[in-house]
Amino acid sequence: MLNQRVAGDAVGPVEPDLDRVFQALADPSRRAMLERLTRGPASVSELAAPLTMSLPGVVQHLQVLEAAGLVRTEKTGRVRSCMLEPGALRAAEAWLAGRRTRWEHRLDRLGELLADDAPPAATTLTTTQE
Amino acid sequence: MLNQRVAGDAVGPVEPDLDRVFQALADPSRRAMLERLTRGPASVSELAAPLTMSLPGVVQHLQVLEAAGLVRTEKTGRVRSCMLEPGALRAAEAWLAGRRTRWEHRLDRLGELLADDAPPAATTLTTTQE
Repeated sequence: MLNQRVAGDAVGPVEPDLDRVFQALADPSRRAMLERLTRGPASVSELAAPLTMSLPGVVQHLQVLEAAGLVRTEKTGRVRSCMLEPGALRAAEAWLAGRRTRWEHRLDRLGELLADDAPPAATTLTTTQE
Repeated sequence: MLNQRVAGDAVGPVEPDLDRVFQALADPSRRAMLERLTRGPASVSELAAPLTMSLPGVVQHLQVLEAAGLVRTEKTGRVRSCMLEPGALRAAEAWLAGRRTRWEHRLDRLGELLADDAPPAATTLTTTQE
């Protein structure tokens, strides 16, 4: 339920849908568009310029990014301006960092266990050899 | 070319394919499997236990994780043991952290520009008002 997007008035910030966020990130053109938006807002044609892609193709990718909450667009007159929404990027990064921390914590504990075990093991080996 | 997976003997570590890594992360069951593997290696049936999914379904998800370089499996006798490969997780986290850093750097520069502009702007305003 936490990951479901709330339509209409949300009470508090909506939890980013990690399925959609990671799905949106799984494409090099969409990552290039995000990359561009870290340098500041851009119009759709500015986003399209460095990509070898039709404008409708760019708009389609933009819709995926918007649905994932990674990008926000605003229409001013005839120009649609696109902005990065850093919250969804941060949520994906936090998920990965959390898993990495657990993994590293596990390795640390394994290291400690090995260190604790080392002296008796060495003694046993010496005793057996004598 | 950098993101292409090298078959056979690779010279140095293979750059993780971010398309595949993010694609693999875009599924809650696969994320749950990774979550489990941060606590240590597990057999396929141990991975399947908390999921409401058939064993072939789990194996299919496992193949996606393996192809993305997020998981490594080893067969010992009749048991296939699954282990987390932290490098691919780290690569995805690094990509996100890099974009966040650029974005924050931009905000910092904007803040500085606003701070630099503030005194002359105030002076101009005062002069105009006098």
